[in-house]
Amino acid sequence: MTKAEIEKAVREIPLFSRLKDEQIIRLSARATVSSIPKKSTFFSEDSSSQGLHVLISGKVKLFKIAEDGKEQTIFVFGPGEPFCLCSVFSDGILPANMAALEDSEVLYISPQEYENMVREDPTILMSMMRVMSRRLKDAMNMIDSLSLKQVPSRLAAYFMSREKDGVVELDISHRELSKIIGITPEALSRTLKKMAAGGLLEVNGSEIRITDMKALELCGDGSCL
Amino acid sequence: MTKAEIEKAVREIPLFSRLKDEQIIRLSARATVSSIPKKSTFFSEDSSSQGLHVLISGKVKLFKIAEDGKEQTIFVFGPGEPFCLCSVFSDGILPANMAALEDSEVLYISPQEYENMVREDPTILMSMMRVMSRRLKDAMNMIDSLSLKQVPSRLAAYFMSREKDGVVELDISHRELSKIIGITPEALSRTLKKMAAGGLLEVNGSEIRITDMKALELCGDGSCL
Repeated sequence: MTKAEIEKAVREIPLFSRLKDEQIIRLSARATVSSIPKKSTFFSEDSSSQGLHVLISGKVKLFKIAEDGKEQTIFVFGPGEPFCLCSVFSDGILPANMAALEDSEVLYISPQEYENMVREDPTILMSMMRVMSRRLKDAMNMIDSLSLKQVPSRLAAYFMSREKDGVVELDISHRELSKIIGITPEALSRTLKKMAAGGLLEVNGSEIRITDMKALELCGDGSCL
Repeated sequence: MTKAEIEKAVREIPLFSRLKDEQIIRLSARATVSSIPKKSTFFSEDSSSQGLHVLISGKVKLFKIAEDGKEQTIFVFGPGEPFCLCSVFSDGILPANMAALEDSEVLYISPQEYENMVREDPTILMSMMRVMSRRLKDAMNMIDSLSLKQVPSRLAAYFMSREKDGVVELDISHRELSKIIGITPEALSRTLKKMAAGGLLEVNGSEIRITDMKALELCGDGSCL
């Protein structure tokens, strides 16, 4: 990326929306950008990293791996989203693995530069806390889902949290979706078919059209057909 | 609580350790303290609350409830720990239920007073982010555990994260522990007996003595006997 391209990318990051022009320019000059090819791992669990990372293009997932190789995806991040926030404020040990779902680019800001930025504008901390509290809520819902909900309810809750005007545009593959729901791809496929047969939704590739909103909502709360 | 008692409690809260004397005095004068009797609910999911809450005595749990009444505990907080941090930085809608495991007292600081405090000393935000990032890591480990681990592994991982010199002092009942591990009290009892029979640990009421640290660690990672 050229300097001008990095600057343009920095201006589009919501977290930095309140920075002044001179801060944007300085930050852009000192930030570095890494490319992560699709399917490659960017971080491994228990490795360490300090500083601030923000995804500027592509898509990445944060996930845990079991002894037997099974994966559980915790978060999927898109452009503009900061990640590894945990490591910014602690020992830097990463709590999970991170890999690219698409060719991605990551902006990196060193701990020193990050501290400068925060000193000049502490409201950045408030914005970061908002992001963290949203993720903490998402994580709690995931715990709820994995512990207390059956597979159809988990899937219904996932769709309900992402629908816009009755449509969910899946921006990940069905295979990746199964790793978020915590089931096998085969179980996901069976559940989708059952839901379609029950009149709750229609599946057209990456588009899920909700045909019975009330029933899907009830299913997400735990009362499935 | 008298004014002097509140002030003493505020001085003992780690989050406020860097506040100046005059700030402590003002904060204590404006804070309020609520008592929560053991077993009563303090917050319900989807209710709302703004401002900062810190537990000053007792013990509380944050938990989700399923349609069928089954509970999953997410966090247990002790004295000095802030909670409902999510609500401080967002719409105030609470992501889970909170109830007292023991008679407890909660210090409450209004959003306005909290803002004053942060304006005077932004390092408080850094301390709060450290707390949030620790909780986010704990939540990720719980997702990992619920999704990818069998019951004995979950329990072993729980004990390994809490042992000191080979001993885990359970500060909650076996019943409450089962709600953290995400199993029935009966399954917990069976698993503990199995682990004891396998020579991994000894159970003496609330004291768990680890007798084979290496085996318990392997079990926590997913390779159980």
